[in-house]
Amino acid sequence: MKNFFEKDAVELLQDGLELIILDQSMLPHQETYIHITTAEQLFYAITLQKVRGSMAIGTTAALGIAMCMNRFETKELKVFENEFLRVKKYLGISRPSAADLFKDLDKMEACYYEQTGADGNPNGLIKRIKARLTVEARNIQLEKINKCLSIAEHGCSILQPGVRILTYGNSGHLAVSRYGTALAPIYLAQQKGYLPKVYICETRPMMQGSRLTTYELAKAGVDTTLICDNTAALIMSQNKVDLVFIGADRVAANGDVINIIGTSSLTIIASHYGIPVYALCPSDTRDFSLATGKDVIIDEGPGYELIDMYFEKPMAPLGTKVYN
Amino acid sequence: MKNFFEKDAVELLQDGLELIILDQSMLPHQETYIHITTAEQLFYAITLQKVRGSMAIGTTAALGIAMCMNRFETKELKVFENEFLRVKKYLGISRPSAADLFKDLDKMEACYYEQTGADGNPNGLIKRIKARLTVEARNIQLEKINKCLSIAEHGCSILQPGVRILTYGNSGHLAVSRYGTALAPIYLAQQKGYLPKVYICETRPMMQGSRLTTYELAKAGVDTTLICDNTAALIMSQNKVDLVFIGADRVAANGDVINIIGTSSLTIIASHYGIPVYALCPSDTRDFSLATGKDVIIDEGPGYELIDMYFEKPMAPLGTKVYN
Repeated sequence: MKNFFEKDAVELLQDGLELIILDQSMLPHQETYIHITTAEQLFYAITLQKVRGSMAIGTTAALGIAMCMNRFETKELKVFENEFLRVKKYLGISRPSAADLFKDLDKMEACYYEQTGADGNPNGLIKRIKARLTVEARNIQLEKINKCLSIAEHGCSILQPGVRILTYGNSGHLAVSRYGTALAPIYLAQQKGYLPKVYICETRPMMQGSRLTTYELAKAGVDTTLICDNTAALIMSQNKVDLVFIGADRVAANGDVINIIGTSSLTIIASHYGIPVYALCPSDTRDFSLATGKDVIIDEGPGYELIDMYFEKPMAPLGTKVYN
Repeated sequence: MKNFFEKDAVELLQDGLELIILDQSMLPHQETYIHITTAEQLFYAITLQKVRGSMAIGTTAALGIAMCMNRFETKELKVFENEFLRVKKYLGISRPSAADLFKDLDKMEACYYEQTGADGNPNGLIKRIKARLTVEARNIQLEKINKCLSIAEHGCSILQPGVRILTYGNSGHLAVSRYGTALAPIYLAQQKGYLPKVYICETRPMMQGSRLTTYELAKAGVDTTLICDNTAALIMSQNKVDLVFIGADRVAANGDVINIIGTSSLTIIASHYGIPVYALCPSDTRDFSLATGKDVIIDEGPGYELIDMYFEKPMAPLGTKVYN
């Protein structure tokens, strides 16, 4: 499948010593790629949402810890191991709601300990661990890209030329590092000449729809129309939407989909108008430790996202209480 | 009922020569009262949404045309009449979607022609017409305030102490000039010591909830919580909302309620959760010329409201298509 982007959202340079991230907090105003060489920079790139989306965060953490270890010079295996565990623990608290963050860091840890059983002097062993961690991180990235290609095929198989799709948030290239989940079939449909028409909800309060999905889909020349989140009911009532494509943060054992705030509103409205909603995600998004969606503790966001974030002046009087 | 505001949103000074309007486009940052002495200033106050809400716009137009005529000096009745008709026509195109604008200007015209049949020299007649127009405009304002008092009583009669209300947009003091429609029962409940808890949807794209309803209800010390429009489903699912109070732009003959974008989304969601929604408005909001809500032509807003309005930097890439 054609890649409409010159770069992945997250890339590890060939020498394994530097990570390049498209700074999503600057979009759509500036396409700035930041160069990351320390665990602290990685941590802030994740917490400040320069990179976002569970899959992209997992990739960043995996490539990032490999990069940190490639840069760490010691002849003592114990010192090397302590540093690995320190970086893993540190990155692990950067975004607790990103499921892939933990999964991918755990994969990196398993990879680490697979090597340490081997013979050899510490020097050779450290070198081998570095090489293996780098390969493992690249595999983690590649595996996600392949999942997205598969999602693209599955999703596109239900699309017709001229299909009109509504999407919410950003479950695309930027959220994965290549192709995306909910947007992957749209890229494939565009490549096939289906000329999909995509309505994008702006997605308050962080505006992932306005800022990121419009940016992404414009790269591929997709016909997009931006709407306020509250306009979805209107365009559905006007028969302008054939189906809804969204991503999923997690899927509970019973099939409940857990996703960004606003997803349930949209789904209730689509259901009212008899419009099908598809949550597109890899099968490992299924979390069997959650019986149902009700078992999820919902993250609350800071109040400034509603009042100050992105605005020229505060949108509400000083001291206004917010539930976000 | 107690008035929690020092001034009405729109007031005609005692001498009838000046209109004072709270500039709602500057809220919540600045409480600026603008002084209006010409038809052109009136026109821009309405088109630039310094005053907004059908009832407040009607009041502004009625008081405004009286003010303009009080200031217009001529000894020729025909010249006076032409000026009246010019101002009426001019104000009539300032906000086509405000139903009260036309109704109230028509009332002013009826009042005008009730006088012209009377005897007397042109000088005395012009003086009498000016006085009658001023009285009529003040009556129009007072009548709306009385309707709001009645809405307050009706609405409050279904409230219990500690009631939790969700509201959308701004159907309050600012939208009427005193008390409001959907917010009137909340003020009365507050006065009665019911301590209502009010969730306010920010109301994209013009942010009437964030900017205006938070401001208004804070004046009365009401316990408010601001949410994104797309968070309504979450708080309803959490059993935090007892009922929804909204206003209505128009009510069709069959009872369909026509109101600001986002109202239908909210209503579908409330219905899903079994939460009652009340549209509070005077009975003359019923428009028997509309068989159903489907007969309404929906105003489209400009794209900049989604991309530039209120934001520090554009929220979407240059050239993004918008449906608003």
